[in-house]
Amino acid sequence: MSFPEQKLSQVTRSMGVSFIREMLRATKGIEGMISLAGGLPSPDSFPKKQLAALFKEVVEKEGTDVLQYGASEGDDILKEQILRVEKEGAVSKEEILITDGSTNGIYFFARALINPGDVVICEGPSFNGTLVAIEACGAELDALPMDEEGLRVDLVRETIVSRQNAGHTVKFIYTIPEFQNPSGRTMSLARRRELIRVARELGVFILEDQPYRDLRFMGGRIDSLWNIARAEYGDDETVTICKSFSKILGPGLRLGFAVGPAGLIAAMAKWAQKVIVSPEGVVQRVVARFLERNMLEPHIERITGMYREKREIMISSLKDTMPPSIRWTEPEGGLFVWLTCPESFDTDALFHEAAKAGVAYIPGSKFYPSAVARKNEIRLNFSYAKPADLREGVARLAKILKR
Amino acid sequence: MSFPEQKLSQVTRSMGVSFIREMLRATKGIEGMISLAGGLPSPDSFPKKQLAALFKEVVEKEGTDVLQYGASEGDDILKEQILRVEKEGAVSKEEILITDGSTNGIYFFARALINPGDVVICEGPSFNGTLVAIEACGAELDALPMDEEGLRVDLVRETIVSRQNAGHTVKFIYTIPEFQNPSGRTMSLARRRELIRVARELGVFILEDQPYRDLRFMGGRIDSLWNIARAEYGDDETVTICKSFSKILGPGLRLGFAVGPAGLIAAMAKWAQKVIVSPEGVVQRVVARFLERNMLEPHIERITGMYREKREIMISSLKDTMPPSIRWTEPEGGLFVWLTCPESFDTDALFHEAAKAGVAYIPGSKFYPSAVARKNEIRLNFSYAKPADLREGVARLAKILKR
Repeated sequence: MSFPEQKLSQVTRSMGVSFIREMLRATKGIEGMISLAGGLPSPDSFPKKQLAALFKEVVEKEGTDVLQYGASEGDDILKEQILRVEKEGAVSKEEILITDGSTNGIYFFARALINPGDVVICEGPSFNGTLVAIEACGAELDALPMDEEGLRVDLVRETIVSRQNAGHTVKFIYTIPEFQNPSGRTMSLARRRELIRVARELGVFILEDQPYRDLRFMGGRIDSLWNIARAEYGDDETVTICKSFSKILGPGLRLGFAVGPAGLIAAMAKWAQKVIVSPEGVVQRVVARFLERNMLEPHIERITGMYREKREIMISSLKDTMPPSIRWTEPEGGLFVWLTCPESFDTDALFHEAAKAGVAYIPGSKFYPSAVARKNEIRLNFSYAKPADLREGVARLAKILKR
Repeated sequence: MSFPEQKLSQVTRSMGVSFIREMLRATKGIEGMISLAGGLPSPDSFPKKQLAALFKEVVEKEGTDVLQYGASEGDDILKEQILRVEKEGAVSKEEILITDGSTNGIYFFARALINPGDVVICEGPSFNGTLVAIEACGAELDALPMDEEGLRVDLVRETIVSRQNAGHTVKFIYTIPEFQNPSGRTMSLARRRELIRVARELGVFILEDQPYRDLRFMGGRIDSLWNIARAEYGDDETVTICKSFSKILGPGLRLGFAVGPAGLIAAMAKWAQKVIVSPEGVVQRVVARFLERNMLEPHIERITGMYREKREIMISSLKDTMPPSIRWTEPEGGLFVWLTCPESFDTDALFHEAAKAGVAYIPGSKFYPSAVARKNEIRLNFSYAKPADLREGVARLAKILKR
């Protein structure tokens, strides 16, 4: 019996299927296929041995505690370690919510703030996975372009003002300032300051999504938006930051955290209570012990070394094989390189040709709201494939793009 | 700086603080306090040793898989084991969604179906934690009374008909048929059949919440609603069942699953993708291996033995100490006994007196929508306190209720 579609809630019915997931499924398990498509960390980056030992130890020694119901806000011991280790400036535990990964924090943030019809500003292109979560809360998205310094804050200002003049409520600006997904771009310090000024002036929040922040291979670390807001304006209200252990320890752990104004964190925790009751107890404590024993820093050093090398291979392969009409970003960290082809290219159509040639990517159009989608761009991932496959995958793609 | 309340979404602003959580907090850590209040499993019920060994093994041997991104629908290997072990009749993997505990499944179920203003029928009293999750999705709740056989289906029918005549959409009936929280009551087989007939006739779904189903200490197992619907009507659409490993292996694991019509499970998975991306990978595989190695059955035998004894202690203590005007349920399983005092009692007010006397409970009023709340009832938990404390706690409470 097939389930009657009309019985589903209106929001559910309007939710599309994830094209990225469909594409990944379509190209999975094909013999010889090199995938530069997903956003998967390298399995070699998982600290399996350390985690295995900690899981055993934590369940044995602290099982009575971690197997029991825990706080919706998250484990206090993990929060203490986040306060100690995170280099984003001191906060109190009341400003931290432990989440089931970064997307989970973004969902609770959106739920806590969005009334149906509210507007959210985002980068175009941006990460589809979180955009659909924000839309599911009833928000309307305005995707605005970036340049080499990141989100065009002049356009952010213009858009907010015109939306406000039309009587709309612009609730927040969603940005991935570091090694953005999909573009690999990083927002400059000047641009960050400008964005905070505009948000403060116009009464709009900023949601700073930072899943890749600690994966910097080169260049100097730039202050996070929420650190700038606090340090330079004494403002602990405008910015909320979401971070994740997914790209550091393994996405299967589903662990991240949000740091923001205590009143908003409390509102997000109310949602957490209803939606997940609390984050997983064992994983939280395992990661707390991992941080406590200072295992994080050497681990990050090891994996950024590995990813730096993979990035080099991808960039040099692009230089060696791509026609001169193709441009790409050279990210200082993260997982992605963004290719821009001449305007005449249709990378949606080329996807199938590339798949036949044994290489998968994500067409750039998948990172825009459909109304403003551009067809001449490509996201390439360099974290997952093995070095030889990175070279070969780029070469296969270059052949397709040369035609 | 305190966060401006008016910036929060309307739904978030309307969410109350959880009185139960506040009460638990207020009585926690007080010297000599015996808590019969929470719904916590006994820490002695956690299979720590087995889990510790499995966590280590799974991360070591399967870390590449379980630490990576997984399916929003849940781990296939865990689904296979659920199909093999669960005694609810065979289903396919497409009818299973792995969730972050039972509440999480209930939330996705409500999101998949509820449009703002839709009506949901529930038992009065019922578990507040899930009611607020359903309300957060915009549903209006009609709480209907139970008798010794469970939910009064005659009133369910009447209410649905009158709601439908008034132009309202009644989306589903939410029931905890086994060892209900808070009443400890179990719905009879005849009543289950009647409920399914009414739901089918009037085009309303049933959400069957079964967190305690496997904690039966005595009496014969009764078929689940979804099994009856399938076996007797060939109906695989009306009922969705949510189960949980919380009361079996430990609530800190945050692991449960829903079984229902494939189309609805797919819609719930769309929400899972946006809200949590996927359930936690390591925990899913650990529980899969626990089931695969047939560790579940002997474990359940052990803990039901332990809880049977605790239930006996509580019931016999009630018999020994309570005044004749007080009645209570004698549940065949689960975690709770439900006391009914004479109408003149106000157990909200008595809570503070009891706390001073060193015993905590949850006033019955907390399990009703405030409009229909009854003040003369009490929920007592027998799973958490040690045997001697169960006796002493009941005795302390009896003294208060005798006055």
